[in-house]
Amino acid sequence: MPTYTAPVKDMQFLLHNVLKVTASDTPGYSELDESFTAAVLEEAGKVATDVLAPLNAVGDREGCVLENGVVRTPKGFDAAFKAMKDGGWTALDCDPDYGGQGLPYLMGSAVGEIFVSANMAFNMYQGLTHGAYSAIHTHGTDDQKATYLPKLVSCDWTGTMNLTEPHCGTDLGLMRTKAEPQEDGSYLITGQKIFISAGEHDLAENIIHLVLAKAPGGGEGSKGISLFIVPKVLVNEDGSLGARNSLSCGKIEEKMGIHGNATCVMNYDGARGWLLGDLHKGMRAMFTMMNEARLGVGLQGYAQAEAAYQNALAYAKDRLQGRAVTGAENPSGPADPLIVHPDIRRNLMEQKSFVEGARALTFWAAHLIDRSVRQGDAAAEGLVSLMIPVIKGFQTDKGFDMAVQAQQVFGGHGYIEEWGMSQFARDARIAMIYEGANGVQALDLVGRKLAQDGGKHVMAFFEMVKAECRAHDGDDRMKGFAEPLKVASKQLQQAGMFFMQSGMKNPNAALSGSYDFMHLMGHVCLGLMWTRMAKAAHEALDAGHADRDYLEAKIATGRFYMARQLPACGMHLARIESGADTVMALSAEAF
Amino acid sequence: MPTYTAPVKDMQFLLHNVLKVTASDTPGYSELDESFTAAVLEEAGKVATDVLAPLNAVGDREGCVLENGVVRTPKGFDAAFKAMKDGGWTALDCDPDYGGQGLPYLMGSAVGEIFVSANMAFNMYQGLTHGAYSAIHTHGTDDQKATYLPKLVSCDWTGTMNLTEPHCGTDLGLMRTKAEPQEDGSYLITGQKIFISAGEHDLAENIIHLVLAKAPGGGEGSKGISLFIVPKVLVNEDGSLGARNSLSCGKIEEKMGIHGNATCVMNYDGARGWLLGDLHKGMRAMFTMMNEARLGVGLQGYAQAEAAYQNALAYAKDRLQGRAVTGAENPSGPADPLIVHPDIRRNLMEQKSFVEGARALTFWAAHLIDRSVRQGDAAAEGLVSLMIPVIKGFQTDKGFDMAVQAQQVFGGHGYIEEWGMSQFARDARIAMIYEGANGVQALDLVGRKLAQDGGKHVMAFFEMVKAECRAHDGDDRMKGFAEPLKVASKQLQQAGMFFMQSGMKNPNAALSGSYDFMHLMGHVCLGLMWTRMAKAAHEALDAGHADRDYLEAKIATGRFYMARQLPACGMHLARIESGADTVMALSAEAF
Repeated sequence: MPTYTAPVKDMQFLLHNVLKVTASDTPGYSELDESFTAAVLEEAGKVATDVLAPLNAVGDREGCVLENGVVRTPKGFDAAFKAMKDGGWTALDCDPDYGGQGLPYLMGSAVGEIFVSANMAFNMYQGLTHGAYSAIHTHGTDDQKATYLPKLVSCDWTGTMNLTEPHCGTDLGLMRTKAEPQEDGSYLITGQKIFISAGEHDLAENIIHLVLAKAPGGGEGSKGISLFIVPKVLVNEDGSLGARNSLSCGKIEEKMGIHGNATCVMNYDGARGWLLGDLHKGMRAMFTMMNEARLGVGLQGYAQAEAAYQNALAYAKDRLQGRAVTGAENPSGPADPLIVHPDIRRNLMEQKSFVEGARALTFWAAHLIDRSVRQGDAAAEGLVSLMIPVIKGFQTDKGFDMAVQAQQVFGGHGYIEEWGMSQFARDARIAMIYEGANGVQALDLVGRKLAQDGGKHVMAFFEMVKAECRAHDGDDRMKGFAEPLKVASKQLQQAGMFFMQSGMKNPNAALSGSYDFMHLMGHVCLGLMWTRMAKAAHEALDAGHADRDYLEAKIATGRFYMARQLPACGMHLARIESGADTVMALSAEAF
Repeated sequence: MPTYTAPVKDMQFLLHNVLKVTASDTPGYSELDESFTAAVLEEAGKVATDVLAPLNAVGDREGCVLENGVVRTPKGFDAAFKAMKDGGWTALDCDPDYGGQGLPYLMGSAVGEIFVSANMAFNMYQGLTHGAYSAIHTHGTDDQKATYLPKLVSCDWTGTMNLTEPHCGTDLGLMRTKAEPQEDGSYLITGQKIFISAGEHDLAENIIHLVLAKAPGGGEGSKGISLFIVPKVLVNEDGSLGARNSLSCGKIEEKMGIHGNATCVMNYDGARGWLLGDLHKGMRAMFTMMNEARLGVGLQGYAQAEAAYQNALAYAKDRLQGRAVTGAENPSGPADPLIVHPDIRRNLMEQKSFVEGARALTFWAAHLIDRSVRQGDAAAEGLVSLMIPVIKGFQTDKGFDMAVQAQQVFGGHGYIEEWGMSQFARDARIAMIYEGANGVQALDLVGRKLAQDGGKHVMAFFEMVKAECRAHDGDDRMKGFAEPLKVASKQLQQAGMFFMQSGMKNPNAALSGSYDFMHLMGHVCLGLMWTRMAKAAHEALDAGHADRDYLEAKIATGRFYMARQLPACGMHLARIESGADTVMALSAEAF
């Protein structure tokens, strides 16, 4: 069965050597000294290793069961959920006014990675609750906050997000769920929602559903949609639980993975709900949570790859098969370990260099969200909003690919459920789909984010990359970093230029290249991260940092990424510049 | 539930317009006129659509069950297997001396694709039997042939191949299964084999296991291994069935996919076996079957992608979501079909252009095998032996990727088992692993095949590609084909040159690039196929072929592949030329 150990050393390097958190003027960062963050991350690691990871295969095997309207989660989930609550982990980055611990979102993300790596399906119960918390915290009335937030912070109640209907996923304008206003100011919600993660379960005494629905007067399309709070159990004025609301789970889905999380069909039959935020502005309310939600999914992508990598690495060191081509490395044994073989190493290095690069990018983005939320830093907000579709789309595509590669290290054993490697791939697969399928991320990036605020944010990104390259001019130690980054960033700019020139005449020319652009930008982002990490590692080495082996491995891993992964940028550019002609040539009938 | 229709038109185009089979001097090809091949393929298509495809999801859901040593296959498999036998499908390309129909291997492959697309797990029972048939046909004594072949041809008995043991997969030198010679010339086989597909089931009255084992005197390593025929039920001299042999299925594995096929742990407890071929030359006997077996797996790769593509295409035409960016295309409906969106088209075109290219490559390779086997054409044998690792490795990697992309078209519905798209991805995944994991294919290609017979075959391949490019010099209609192919083939040659120059000094430099070389060569092969198909399509258009729409779509699809997929070659070359340094930099402890 797979095991998991939290990568605390790598996280500490990012927090303290790369992001230098205690030196930051972001409110709350000054408290994040090395011993404090180490204590938090190590404690989270213990919970992950001892409590969550052993339940990962259990959840996959048992799945959730719907009986008489009640969903039973896998054996052990209940106790583990209680342990998470009792340990205060659900409250980590929540508002102290409602029982939270007020730590920065950056710390919430680091701890989140640890929990997601150990057990993605389990962690979704808490993750969705955090989403509901954020929505109510941002858009709720004082009464709503007082009623719901403390319970969501403690996870005594959990939350959900209800968007999708059978006939509409991406195109929410087609939505049919209706909200009828009542005299007391509440609404009666009627309709069917599907793919509702954690829509029904036995881990909490109440579930707070946030439901998108159409109230009268909103007009056609997605702009007239409103967001409602629809509790499973109605809450009395004194905060105690009252009657069951008119809603039920009609079915749970059989899925490729994340079996431990109940994916529900939810039926609202005149269920009582209350408007959250402004009438007919539900989409706007959703969008304010989108950055965090999509960053969370991008995090799932590399977190699954991390867990898969740890196990592939252990297997590659342990399994004896064949001999090194340059001479036996384990001459006293019957064969050499797999890790001596160059193609196994190529595979492992691809995993390692992706995961560490994606972690750096995710932590940086979480830091930008902290700057945006805690400091009102508009530049940070613009930049992170530009990068979110890249983080979500690129990291989940690559995270899945890497989980598949980790599985490949095991040969036939990787295909057998007993070894647990299949689960990493199956679980990781969903992250490419939900919270906006990756094609939609690419569309958001190219069709919306590039031009946002007159293209200011993408220009700022280009300038930032240029400055990073310039900063290492003439520094021989950084040669394998600054030069490839420069080449790749020029290719990215050239692609952007192509979109500007040809997209004006023919929007299909830009949109045909959107997916490649998302990946091209992903590689440039990771190239930038690796350049910064290499620089930080050299600084730490110069300063006499104790763990030279770790720092030297960090630099070597970065060199691999720059030499072996950045060449993908040229391919993506060539695809983009081939334009729409071959993509759009066939009529639908000619396929 | 997914549906499947055999791509008869596309197969006919390959057989008659590209390969021009009736004009070939290959024995047996003159009979393959258009109406005959159409009749065979359409009849196979009916079986696939009506009998096999409906059982695909059933097999996935029910799986196989082991009870008291007996494996029960999914409901309906038994009747379907009988239908395949009664229809003569199992005998199609087998030797008429033993009840076969004697059709070329090429036709067996075309029909095989149809059955594999419809139900991969089901078709493995027959596929492995065909492998055992080939082994006994090639290496058996007259007695062995007379005893086993007619029953294997009819699939009254099925076959298996037993290589892997718990501690050894690729490295068969570590094998522990023993064969003790008996006075009557037979052997007693003792040991445990794992991952034995179709090792035990209820579809046939006997199972003929081919087992690799070590007989005394063979020395250490893989060279001393011998191959044995070990029937589940002993066969009396008169051909009737006798006593049960001392072998049993100890367990069936829970797998990521191909649930309908029983993957068995087989225990041989002094089971009686008979030597097949020469003593201590079992590996050589295995290798003679390797080309066909690996081509069959490469075929599974694109056959799964074909089935997935058909369903993704239907969904993209049917599902209404969003509006075309250039203006509504379905103004009277609530939204446009998915297929109007450029990124959905990019996705579909990637699937379509891969599947059609891979089909062409596979058919061509099957044709070369026919020339090699039926005509003793050594050049054809050398060429196909060079291409086999590419066909196996590249086509199964891409086949899986494309099945995943097809799943992506469905959004959340792709992740739900109900829609069947997850199964295509899960089933396709195994093809990257068995019959030599794809890393081993890359090693075979770069470490063995490139240099085989003094590099004669790879040189012949380069010359063939060059000649193809030259043939279209100045032909404007072929501009989008010959030029990109020329660029890509130069990149391939440059990579080969790098291996020659640096691999001499450091074998790791070549092996670090082996996987990229396999993919680079895969793209060049498909580029060559697309160039040939475009030429054939133009010829047919010039000749006034009736189906202009099909031929024009063929050319447009080829243009997509050349413009959008061949640019991967430059990336692979850059990775290869970065050498071993970054791949091998870390010590095993530093990971």
